[in-house]
Amino acid sequence: MSTRGRFLVFEGIDGAGKSTQIAALSEWLQAQGVATVTTREPGGTPVGEAIRTLVLTHDMHAETELMLICAARREHLLTVIDPALAAGRWVVCDRFADASFAYQVGGRGVDRERFRQLDEWTRSGRQPDLVFLFDLPVAAAAKRRANRDLSDGPSACDRFERESEAFFAAVRAAYLARAAQDPERYCVLDAQLPPERLTEIVLATVAQRWFAPKTRQSPSQGVAHDG
Amino acid sequence: MSTRGRFLVFEGIDGAGKSTQIAALSEWLQAQGVATVTTREPGGTPVGEAIRTLVLTHDMHAETELMLICAARREHLLTVIDPALAAGRWVVCDRFADASFAYQVGGRGVDRERFRQLDEWTRSGRQPDLVFLFDLPVAAAAKRRANRDLSDGPSACDRFERESEAFFAAVRAAYLARAAQDPERYCVLDAQLPPERLTEIVLATVAQRWFAPKTRQSPSQGVAHDG
Repeated sequence: MSTRGRFLVFEGIDGAGKSTQIAALSEWLQAQGVATVTTREPGGTPVGEAIRTLVLTHDMHAETELMLICAARREHLLTVIDPALAAGRWVVCDRFADASFAYQVGGRGVDRERFRQLDEWTRSGRQPDLVFLFDLPVAAAAKRRANRDLSDGPSACDRFERESEAFFAAVRAAYLARAAQDPERYCVLDAQLPPERLTEIVLATVAQRWFAPKTRQSPSQGVAHDG
Repeated sequence: MSTRGRFLVFEGIDGAGKSTQIAALSEWLQAQGVATVTTREPGGTPVGEAIRTLVLTHDMHAETELMLICAARREHLLTVIDPALAAGRWVVCDRFADASFAYQVGGRGVDRERFRQLDEWTRSGRQPDLVFLFDLPVAAAAKRRANRDLSDGPSACDRFERESEAFFAAVRAAYLARAAQDPERYCVLDAQLPPERLTEIVLATVAQRWFAPKTRQSPSQGVAHDG
């Protein structure tokens, strides 16, 4: 088929448990026969991964950080996301533009209007069809990251992980503000729920929007409707 | 003194002989008692130099390349150029925004309007006071680069130096087009002149714009005038 694929994004601060759910959704989509590309930001391309390393390891001005992340996003859109969607594949992405708003505007204080201009330039109209926001109180996320660091050794995300509780509280608030502005596009999840329960909600949300129910009572309601 | 410093930029394709003239001008300015910062783009800051290496070594889309170079420029402006100018120091810079127009628009074909938007975002109004454009026929520049590579080993600029003659011809044409639009701000030099002659012209141009002549006949003409 040649219809455009769907673009599904997972957002949330580190430690919110996105990775497990991304893997579960990708696996489920493949099982439904949907060709799926699983990717992440910043990254997802060779130069994007190099930019990611650069951002995590070098001190820089907040606007420089925003530009680098947008550069990685532009490459990702042009060489991975847009071609996949155009070919009918679905894209499941760990973070996208909301993360830039949350971290660089909310966390680092980049001017909102400056962000809007650069974000518009970068995305050229591309929007996720659905965003899962994994919301977690800051203290709970810090505890999860600390446990992970104990088992995995120091994380690669040092420059962000060193940030204060106030920083993560601002990031969380910015994420929630974005979601509140467009409730149709965002599904806010309580990341403290058990992982199995979160998987159920993620899969049910996607199934309900884009896949036909297995048993149906009412023929008047749409099949594989278009959200 | 607390007046703003001057921002002088040297532009031209690799092999045009900018470095020699930048060193000569910086030395001359210091000899006039002018505190001078000599710097380069992309680069001039720790993260900027890392971005430079990334751009020279990774394949990427032309818009991604433009964004990375603009990210390095934003950091350079915010942390080096603007603070120096505000403190009254002069800044002598090897390449600035004209290079992005020449290489990414002229050479790589980035859309002009897309360039204009991102360039405006990046510079936030900062303009060089004077740009020296070292113009050189493409064949002559290639010969100089080849000679340099023979004596220095392979250059760090591989991704650009591998480009075709047509690429450099487009870059040169774009540089000349920018200079033609604003003749007051640009001084186009024939880079095939002997280096000593080029130094004379560079120093005389700066002296005539901003420094008082040593002997003066007419008190009606300005001293250290403002161009």
